[in-house]
Amino acid sequence: MEAALIAELRRRIGPHPLLRLGIGDDAAVLRTAGLPDTVLTVDLLTEGVDFRLSEATPQRIGRKALAVNLSDLAAMASQPLAAVVALALPRQGGFELALGLYEGMIPLAEQFHVAIAGGDTNSYEGPLVVSVTLLGTVTEAGPLTRSGARPGDRILVTGAFGGSILGRHFDFTPRVHEALQLIRTFRIHAGIDASDGLSLDLARLCQESGCGAEVALDRIPIHRDAYRLAEHLADGSSPLDHALADGEDFELILAVPPQQAQQLIAQQPLGVPLTDIGQFLETPGLWHRGAEGLRPLPARGYEHPFT
Amino acid sequence: MEAALIAELRRRIGPHPLLRLGIGDDAAVLRTAGLPDTVLTVDLLTEGVDFRLSEATPQRIGRKALAVNLSDLAAMASQPLAAVVALALPRQGGFELALGLYEGMIPLAEQFHVAIAGGDTNSYEGPLVVSVTLLGTVTEAGPLTRSGARPGDRILVTGAFGGSILGRHFDFTPRVHEALQLIRTFRIHAGIDASDGLSLDLARLCQESGCGAEVALDRIPIHRDAYRLAEHLADGSSPLDHALADGEDFELILAVPPQQAQQLIAQQPLGVPLTDIGQFLETPGLWHRGAEGLRPLPARGYEHPFT
Repeated sequence: MEAALIAELRRRIGPHPLLRLGIGDDAAVLRTAGLPDTVLTVDLLTEGVDFRLSEATPQRIGRKALAVNLSDLAAMASQPLAAVVALALPRQGGFELALGLYEGMIPLAEQFHVAIAGGDTNSYEGPLVVSVTLLGTVTEAGPLTRSGARPGDRILVTGAFGGSILGRHFDFTPRVHEALQLIRTFRIHAGIDASDGLSLDLARLCQESGCGAEVALDRIPIHRDAYRLAEHLADGSSPLDHALADGEDFELILAVPPQQAQQLIAQQPLGVPLTDIGQFLETPGLWHRGAEGLRPLPARGYEHPFT
Repeated sequence: MEAALIAELRRRIGPHPLLRLGIGDDAAVLRTAGLPDTVLTVDLLTEGVDFRLSEATPQRIGRKALAVNLSDLAAMASQPLAAVVALALPRQGGFELALGLYEGMIPLAEQFHVAIAGGDTNSYEGPLVVSVTLLGTVTEAGPLTRSGARPGDRILVTGAFGGSILGRHFDFTPRVHEALQLIRTFRIHAGIDASDGLSLDLARLCQESGCGAEVALDRIPIHRDAYRLAEHLADGSSPLDHALADGEDFELILAVPPQQAQQLIAQQPLGVPLTDIGQFLETPGLWHRGAEGLRPLPARGYEHPFT
């Protein structure tokens, strides 16, 4: 990382109880001895796919780069601890851009008590790429994984889905506290965050758990952004289509034993609504119940195109 | 990460005693409870700056992406444990490219007992960007840092310098074992790896330690690649110039108390030569001794240009 940027970041990023050695050396040293097992995740955002510099400030982009990682730790019901940041910056305006990205990250890091532990900042002939790695720890209740859903479990989701492209994909609140609260008190079998699309991420959870899912389409919480987007686009996609496939909702999708689910739905212990949208099945695949019984539900969402 | 790539990587990357949960979930879970403090570092390589796909195989690039991080942990005299990998891939040929990068990383990871714990693989309209984050632990001797050099300490370096662009910048051996061996038996005050240039990185170490350094130019171990490069380029740069400024040597620069340094030079306990190239001074800055006493030595090397 460049000397001037390191100096500026050292000024802006305060000390953190976890950091024995922070920004500026070859690596950061974190006080983790005595803590439970470590959780490690990385997410990379690229100009043109995850954001456009012409449409979003560097601050919002920086915030999102950290927030998507926090959402991954929420999906594991883990406690975030520290982040390192790698930037590939376009040569022109790179310094200001880097500062703006960090300006967006720092308040979110503070909100979740995450130490920004270091980074690597490069300039090159290419679009902006932001990669954030987040370190956390599992709690006593252990990590939540994608592989524990069992037939008969209810499908519970936080919040509402669809139309995040209207702005929520930048400004969402990662469900870290909600996941930690849930796993402390209730038995949750499996979980994933809805990053690429409700139906696609639910299908991934099913696949890792070796089961299927029946979704009650009339019970899916549709965000008002999904209605606005459907109206705006007028391409034949319904608000429900957007809720199922848009992605970047960063809500939790959970597999919960029926009795626990009933309690959760009745108590609504989180600040955000919990909704029961169906149940896990022995039969693999995604399904919904039509007039003629179970019908396949396509798993739709964003997948990076490779060739 | 794409399903097909995850499946392929799961097949190729074996189990690791540290990994409770590896590639495929929202984050990796690592058995670190009971281990000493954690060290975290990230390095990002970009097409056109750190490599050219037209000149290097994906395997060599992947190896380098992990090796530069291992070198950072060597500079901290820390034990590498696990890595996560974030890729921004060009759309065309991205899948094969990703596999090639991992093919280059896996043998090096195995050699250093590093678990490849997960990653994020994206495609976009841009050049290849490879970001590797490496997690390690400090040993009982504690981390080596940049800030402990004291006036009177000798400057010791491993290996030889200059001309790494001829191929060594891909195929170097990170000095992880050497650093761990040194710190176990000897008192080392400070260290850094020569990534951007011997003189520039020595200047950084001096700055963090609040001291200066006098370099004996006639004792710098000059790699034969530096001679070859000087002859090939014939631009007036001497082999010594290349040794001082080329960078990507990934050798260790160490601050060692005089008696310890004398022992080390006499014993040569590493498989790679250790050379005494001068001493640290109270006076800030880099210096060398000419006929008329101390003369300033410019700190030269690679710095990312920002505007």
